[in-house]
Amino acid sequence: MKEVFKTATDFEAAMDKLQQHPMFRKPFAWGVFKAQTSQMGDGKVLTGTFLCCNWIGKNLRSFAAFAHAAGMFGENGQAWEGPEAVIPLTEASRHKLLAMFKPYPYISGVAHQNAQVANLLPNLRDENKGLYQLVVLFKNAKPKSLQSAYLKLTGLSECFIKPRELNLEGVFNLLPNVAWAGNKAYDLAWLREHEVRLRIEGKMPVIDYVDKFPRYLGQVIPPDSVRILASHNVRFGAHLAEGTTVMPGASYINYNAGTLGRAMVEGRISSSATVGEGTDVGGGASILGVLSGGNSTPINIGKNCLLGANSVTGIPLGNNCVVDAGVAVLPGGKFYIPPEVQAQLAKVNPRMIWEAKSSFKGSELFGLNQAHFRQDSQTGKLVVRLSTHKVTLNEALHA
Amino acid sequence: MKEVFKTATDFEAAMDKLQQHPMFRKPFAWGVFKAQTSQMGDGKVLTGTFLCCNWIGKNLRSFAAFAHAAGMFGENGQAWEGPEAVIPLTEASRHKLLAMFKPYPYISGVAHQNAQVANLLPNLRDENKGLYQLVVLFKNAKPKSLQSAYLKLTGLSECFIKPRELNLEGVFNLLPNVAWAGNKAYDLAWLREHEVRLRIEGKMPVIDYVDKFPRYLGQVIPPDSVRILASHNVRFGAHLAEGTTVMPGASYINYNAGTLGRAMVEGRISSSATVGEGTDVGGGASILGVLSGGNSTPINIGKNCLLGANSVTGIPLGNNCVVDAGVAVLPGGKFYIPPEVQAQLAKVNPRMIWEAKSSFKGSELFGLNQAHFRQDSQTGKLVVRLSTHKVTLNEALHA
Amino acid sequence: MKEVFKTATDFEAAMDKLQQHPMFRKPFAWGVFKAQTSQMGDGKVLTGTFLCCNWIGKNLRSFAAFAHAAGMFGENGQAWEGPEAVIPLTEASRHKLLAMFKPYPYISGVAHQNAQVANLLPNLRDENKGLYQLVVLFKNAKPKSLQSAYLKLTGLSECFIKPRELNLEGVFNLLPNVAWAGNKAYDLAWLREHEVRLRIEGKMPVIDYVDKFPRYLGQVIPPDSVRILASHNVRFGAHLAEGTTVMPGASYINYNAGTLGRAMVEGRISSSATVGEGTDVGGGASILGVLSGGNSTPINIGKNCLLGANSVTGIPLGNNCVVDAGVAVLPGGKFYIPPEVQAQLAKVNPRMIWEAKSSFKGSELFGLNQAHFRQDSQTGKLVVRLSTHKVTLNEALHA
Repeated sequence: MKEVFKTATDFEAAMDKLQQHPMFRKPFAWGVFKAQTSQMGDGKVLTGTFLCCNWIGKNLRSFAAFAHAAGMFGENGQAWEGPEAVIPLTEASRHKLLAMFKPYPYISGVAHQNAQVANLLPNLRDENKGLYQLVVLFKNAKPKSLQSAYLKLTGLSECFIKPRELNLEGVFNLLPNVAWAGNKAYDLAWLREHEVRLRIEGKMPVIDYVDKFPRYLGQVIPPDSVRILASHNVRFGAHLAEGTTVMPGASYINYNAGTLGRAMVEGRISSSATVGEGTDVGGGASILGVLSGGNSTPINIGKNCLLGANSVTGIPLGNNCVVDAGVAVLPGGKFYIPPEVQAQLAKVNPRMIWEAKSSFKGSELFGLNQAHFRQDSQTGKLVVRLSTHKVTLNEALHA
Repeated sequence: MKEVFKTATDFEAAMDKLQQHPMFRKPFAWGVFKAQTSQMGDGKVLTGTFLCCNWIGKNLRSFAAFAHAAGMFGENGQAWEGPEAVIPLTEASRHKLLAMFKPYPYISGVAHQNAQVANLLPNLRDENKGLYQLVVLFKNAKPKSLQSAYLKLTGLSECFIKPRELNLEGVFNLLPNVAWAGNKAYDLAWLREHEVRLRIEGKMPVIDYVDKFPRYLGQVIPPDSVRILASHNVRFGAHLAEGTTVMPGASYINYNAGTLGRAMVEGRISSSATVGEGTDVGGGASILGVLSGGNSTPINIGKNCLLGANSVTGIPLGNNCVVDAGVAVLPGGKFYIPPEVQAQLAKVNPRMIWEAKSSFKGSELFGLNQAHFRQDSQTGKLVVRLSTHKVTLNEALHA
Repeated sequence: MKEVFKTATDFEAAMDKLQQHPMFRKPFAWGVFKAQTSQMGDGKVLTGTFLCCNWIGKNLRSFAAFAHAAGMFGENGQAWEGPEAVIPLTEASRHKLLAMFKPYPYISGVAHQNAQVANLLPNLRDENKGLYQLVVLFKNAKPKSLQSAYLKLTGLSECFIKPRELNLEGVFNLLPNVAWAGNKAYDLAWLREHEVRLRIEGKMPVIDYVDKFPRYLGQVIPPDSVRILASHNVRFGAHLAEGTTVMPGASYINYNAGTLGRAMVEGRISSSATVGEGTDVGGGASILGVLSGGNSTPINIGKNCLLGANSVTGIPLGNNCVVDAGVAVLPGGKFYIPPEVQAQLAKVNPRMIWEAKSSFKGSELFGLNQAHFRQDSQTGKLVVRLSTHKVTLNEALHA
């Protein structure tokens, strides 16, 4: 293959041909990762960030170019085997990329990020050796490296893909627990090793958190319509649709969870849970997840719901539901639904089959639309009524 | 007008005369703003801060001097029209100010901040051009600029004025949504435009939050008796009276809301809500606001109240009230009040008219004094009793 | 005493002899403190950090060496009186230390931190004069200085000692309220004094919080198995056992409180409260403390308990208890326990004496094992059942 291209047409033709190479495999997702390694000097990757990231069939020509530069077509014996690959880019890779991407010189902007990377990669010898890596997922399998886990978390947080659509099994075991100062990760062992000296010299980094995951805002630049009032309230891997506001205080959105449309979040969206367009998760409201506390059903909250302040929701809800402030809707709770309310609900829940009874367990009410969950203030009974409340978000807060 | 004053008496006499100028208009509030503009180079103001700030008739001589320097007496044709003015100070303005404030050389301290500004303004050409602005509110009208909105929010947070006393209509539309790294605002479009380069060069700023509002602690130095254990829990525009402690975790004080006296805040004081002297807002307790969730009545909580952990209060309360932990007091909830309790409450609520009934909606109990809102643990009924609990803050936590 | 030691044996022999000195007193705890003073130049100590810290009989030879260097054996007339001592180390002290610790040259690591300090102390003249201090507690008495308070808080946070085992009476009066930018403390008076200049020059520090206490992560490097997802949620003086995860959002662990084993913390552990091994404090759950809100009994939560989301616990619990989401268990609440449940609970609570009744106040149920506190969803009654729920933490989250 001629390796310096003069025109975009040359590049395209060559890359189309490369995709016919017998060794070529189409990626599920791929990107270029910049790794940050341990202060201990052992090369252990503590964190890093994707410089570019491509999902499901996007930018295959650029992929062919990066794969070629990384030696995935046999030159260096790199195998295209297994569900994922993490291949360090070398100084030779960089030269190949510069030559191939010659028709696409660096222009800042949100377009052509793969070409930007090809143009801007630094000298990959010495202190940069091995730090820039081509990361490829060939299929959506259990991740085997920090890099492939980060690629999936990036895909979620950049909204290429929705919560629960990716295999994230075992992700906790792939990420080391580290101390974070800004976006930089510190090896806890190194901090302990040098603690006395760092304190005397006034060089102890200001540690903001200790966790396996970085934060969403350390990895992703959100759309203009998203607001996150405190970075710690949104973990990397959270999915925030346009128009999402995450207030500070009691709110939290874990990885592999989030909003599917414009939403107000003042409460907790636990891992695996999602919230639909137009929904308001009130201050301190909890949507239970599957990571801890004994719950095992992932919970979707539908559109235009209102989860009142300090409410707890442990079952999936349909659209237009209200859970009153302070009420806990759990699978094991029993809810009284009088016959006339059942009749009203039946109209907006045509698929629901109503047994001849008036008391229902929460686990029998999964996905109900237009339900208003309340505690009767005169009898203390948990009851369901037809919601007549029209939930509307304040436009000014989500524009 | 002679423009270099030798003595304070000269300054005072000249400024008193200026106030008689036919074009002079007395300000409702005014200050000098230092603007921070977009990295995009388009001059758009992203944020800024007031170097000095004067309310309702204070420091009119200094105002006359700044107005004169800004050309508000006709020299540059600046109009004194409309409810507000934002006038860039020029290098010529700076020279005029230095001359006028000659009798008041720079002395650090909390006094004479207007004179300090006049003395310390940097060269206003080149990179400073247009960034220092005289901002004047002639009346308390709907704000028309980021600067006038910031002046009002400063007035609230510096306790010149109380929540709900200022017109803040449309404030969300005046403030751009930006990424904050410390007190510096970044244009999200610029971060996206340069994302690849910034990540490769290790120059991506550490983004702590994305919001239209800065934080209180980015704009205001609180009194010695105020504690804010995490900056994100208090928005710019919050009103924290002396002796207020804001714990971390679930707490939050929004703009145009806050405390009117010594108070412990471990819960949420939503926009438009206020809390009286001696009141304890327990961990995770919510006081509902008017911005979202459907509530429309601004809520005042009286003095010496205790809002229990995870309680929710959606109605105004009088003094000496208790809401038990986990209880939600909402306008639509029904509360049982036995006749003997009504008699007790009548004594401490002489203006309240009691209907001949024992069940009251929350909306009928606005502003009740000494009420103890509870859920009867044997019947689940919401009830009101006369509170016999004397709420006292721990002195050590508020000194 | 010969003051330059050639071998470890020389050092040991001399230090053993010093401990026989008539003036020697065995310390309860001691360490070397590096102080940070006020920007006002008045020498007031705002904060600081312990470079090494030794508890109850540990490293007495090193103590003898530091005490000797600090002049505690009479040379400078330093008294070994009272419950505590804070003695500035001088340049002469440093030379003595270097000579005595000659057999132990600086080696980085977690061992021999006292020797590291002796080796690394900077020149103690000029700007370092008085900033490095030997701090000794001779007994566990009411602290009399910021330094002795910090030593106790360090002991708690480094898990040398458990919550409520130290006398911390009056600690709030010893710590000044300051503005924190990273780990540096700013005198609020100084910020106010120079506010105009700092804002104009763009040198206003980024204030992250205002409090008397620093944060745990500003003072302590946690073990590898601890996660703290946001530094503001854990105060200095909190006790986090290995395997503790503190989620962001509504969580908080105050000083003199914490976990005694592996635990998940998504809620509030107020000052004086502790949580046992294997316990899960759900999102927004509150464990009440004694500092505010009127509670006066310190609360221990036993092992393997689950405090549901937004629950409130105001009484001590035994092992294997569950408090349902949203339920408040308070001393004054009444809980219905049917006879058959009493019989079941009696088996796992052999010491408990059951009165012949079925309704119990929360204050009668202190320390009950295997109790499940719930609100009956059909009657609103608070009830206790035998818990059959096996609480198990997710291994992946605490490894």
